[in-house]
Amino acid sequence: MKPKLASGTRDFGPRELTKRKHITHEIQKVFEKNAYVPLETPAFEQLDTLTGKYGEEGDKLIFKILNNGLNEKSEEKKQRTAEAFDDLIREGKNSNLLTERALKYDLTIPFARYVAMNSHDLVFPFRRYQMQPVWRADRPQKGRYREFWQCDADVVGVQSLAYDAELICIYDDVFEALRLPTIRICVNHRMLLAGIADYLIISDRWLAFTVILDKLDKIGWQAVKLQLQNLGADPQRLEKVEPILNAQAPSKDVLDYLETLASNENLDKGINELKSLMSIVRSYKPNTHCEIYIDTSLARGLDYYTGMIVEVRSTHASGSLGGGGRYDELTAIFGLRDMPGVGISFGLDRIYNMIEDLNLFPSDVLKSPDLYLYVETDNRSVFHYISRWKEEGVSLEVVFDKTKIDKVYKKAEKKNIRHVAILTEQDATNKSMTIKNINNGEKEIVSFGEVSNFLLRTQN
Amino acid sequence: MKPKLASGTRDFGPRELTKRKHITHEIQKVFEKNAYVPLETPAFEQLDTLTGKYGEEGDKLIFKILNNGLNEKSEEKKQRTAEAFDDLIREGKNSNLLTERALKYDLTIPFARYVAMNSHDLVFPFRRYQMQPVWRADRPQKGRYREFWQCDADVVGVQSLAYDAELICIYDDVFEALRLPTIRICVNHRMLLAGIADYLIISDRWLAFTVILDKLDKIGWQAVKLQLQNLGADPQRLEKVEPILNAQAPSKDVLDYLETLASNENLDKGINELKSLMSIVRSYKPNTHCEIYIDTSLARGLDYYTGMIVEVRSTHASGSLGGGGRYDELTAIFGLRDMPGVGISFGLDRIYNMIEDLNLFPSDVLKSPDLYLYVETDNRSVFHYISRWKEEGVSLEVVFDKTKIDKVYKKAEKKNIRHVAILTEQDATNKSMTIKNINNGEKEIVSFGEVSNFLLRTQN
Repeated sequence: MKPKLASGTRDFGPRELTKRKHITHEIQKVFEKNAYVPLETPAFEQLDTLTGKYGEEGDKLIFKILNNGLNEKSEEKKQRTAEAFDDLIREGKNSNLLTERALKYDLTIPFARYVAMNSHDLVFPFRRYQMQPVWRADRPQKGRYREFWQCDADVVGVQSLAYDAELICIYDDVFEALRLPTIRICVNHRMLLAGIADYLIISDRWLAFTVILDKLDKIGWQAVKLQLQNLGADPQRLEKVEPILNAQAPSKDVLDYLETLASNENLDKGINELKSLMSIVRSYKPNTHCEIYIDTSLARGLDYYTGMIVEVRSTHASGSLGGGGRYDELTAIFGLRDMPGVGISFGLDRIYNMIEDLNLFPSDVLKSPDLYLYVETDNRSVFHYISRWKEEGVSLEVVFDKTKIDKVYKKAEKKNIRHVAILTEQDATNKSMTIKNINNGEKEIVSFGEVSNFLLRTQN
Repeated sequence: MKPKLASGTRDFGPRELTKRKHITHEIQKVFEKNAYVPLETPAFEQLDTLTGKYGEEGDKLIFKILNNGLNEKSEEKKQRTAEAFDDLIREGKNSNLLTERALKYDLTIPFARYVAMNSHDLVFPFRRYQMQPVWRADRPQKGRYREFWQCDADVVGVQSLAYDAELICIYDDVFEALRLPTIRICVNHRMLLAGIADYLIISDRWLAFTVILDKLDKIGWQAVKLQLQNLGADPQRLEKVEPILNAQAPSKDVLDYLETLASNENLDKGINELKSLMSIVRSYKPNTHCEIYIDTSLARGLDYYTGMIVEVRSTHASGSLGGGGRYDELTAIFGLRDMPGVGISFGLDRIYNMIEDLNLFPSDVLKSPDLYLYVETDNRSVFHYISRWKEEGVSLEVVFDKTKIDKVYKKAEKKNIRHVAILTEQDATNKSMTIKNINNGEKEIVSFGEVSNFLLRTQN
């Protein structure tokens, strides 16, 4: 049997995993500095916890788990399962007789479920972060996987814009810690979008308006303009908002421009909140690492956002490196009302690819052992020294085997280990061995008592 | 909708997760000290990677993922899926038309798959560790979950018993680091079991012999004895091995007793290897933290073990805290021969429960913020100081809201935060605030410039 991975999934070998852990560690440090606490939810949820939360397209991408009721003894249950399946096949319907469980699709809905279930024990405001894989039955392609990682931070039970600003600063702190260049944090506000729709006299086509705007990157302004006209947007007013909706680069003067252009309840609220938000961010962090911009075309498709919307982009990454926003009613679907919150997410895979492409992983992320030690002898005294060297802080990879010396060097080289020693019976007797530096070819006879000093001295 | 968890799964909230991370961190440190490198494999594998590897009972417990082919457009594929399902229901058979993917059942088979797929890139011996959840469709009960964590260390491409000894010392190091008492590392050898079967003249019933032995804990010696007699064990010889198979406590003299009792090829090999193994362990670690014993009744059911078998137990835990052994042919099922290895696994859930029951988590595992700060004012200057305090190393949980002072204290108490401050507009103007220690009720007016010093000074 020739083994292969399930399509759209990946193994993370030692080197890649170590580099991924570097990223999650940096993100985690920033989360924890801001008093976000960790949460993990199960890989699978009850199917009805997930269905209906991600739109029709989203529902199709949920991985469902087969009931083990297939092994059910009850004839009646078997029969019901069979009938349910017939419906499923013939009518494309779903049924909880065939499947009652599904792999989680994102971290947000399980978080909302957790908050609703534990609201009596939690202290609000509740800040939590979560770093776990999620699964989507998407068609795999370059950069799109069926198993991928999300790193989320949310705070719930909060009204103040200061939290929105805190999360924008968390974005900035993380990308600063990761030393990523050309990062742009794009911010918008649902009320601003609503206000523009009002101004264009298409208030009643609000959702369609955001869907069209969302396509700007893909189809360009002329096509968006045409679709907005077809939607009923006032042509003259459309000309006037063109400079801000079709900005090549989001501009800092957008809010001033909009303020002079028009005034309506939604627009005013959007402008005021975004101005306050930007002002708090500047107070928190006068010199941000990233560019923070108002982008009035940012819609992010998710209709549960009710206030600020944010997305992170870079000229070095295709697609967003993260996104989030403010929501009022996330936990209401699980029966818990009045729990407004705001959250952001980091796309670990895209961040990883960008750091890798730009060669920005710190050189000390991948640490190799100090010594590759081939033990050829059965002499028991050797074990005592191996323990001792490890206790003394030497990072040691020990092999108990005999092989050709060239092979040993080759292995050490492939493992990026600088020092190699082959420990023979004679060495065990002499209590010393020859350590070779395979970078410069230098050899030195080192007594067992001096091995740690020798290696720790030459570490740097 | 009243939300609930899928049966057999758990959320890990902040406190529990932090304590679990303490355990995995200690295990990881020991793994890395011994040059084991991390690996992660996907949550789901191709179904045929997993089926047939865990015995008939194991196969039933594999969680299968429904093909999204249920949304297939092709009528033919729908039809084939429907027929396959009929077979499945009526005959209890499985079919890859309904499911091609399954959640991983353990970390060992995915590891073998990884090694087989990447053998050309890996340097052998290859030491890897892996800490990930696995899933089994078992009936949930106290202490048994459908999603649970395994922490494995394996080394492949190795012959020497020194690796078996290394892994036993890793067990010992971890339980020492976790300060767990009454841990017993029980060791056996497949050849020893085979030798005893030979001695009992039931060589041909080898597998049945180990299955019966495995039940000793549950059914007691008299029942085991009866079943062995029924299997055809020589009655007189059975009497003679009774003292070692039915030991209340495994004894150190077992090997000596067996040596005087009988001699056959398997038995001699088992005895010699176990003697060598114990001797290497003693050389590595003359003063082990755990008791290390030969337990001739240990069989562990898994028939891929070919040499040493190990299991960790404690009088404070029901069931084993970990187990493992040596195998010769693990990767052969995936086409890679001659890759003997040895591995161990830690049962994270049981270890967690034992530490919790014995109240052995270090008191500093759960760190609370230094200050719970309620900001009542909109004054922008406050954000500057909040940033500054965080930069200066203060761990700060900030709330932007107004509420009754008693409520604030109650929240802080529930969060185990000692210092509380409510920052008003007046405070922002004065650049100072009152910090209250809710443990002793003391209040102190602290200027903004001194907040970090004050909190860091009183941290201990």
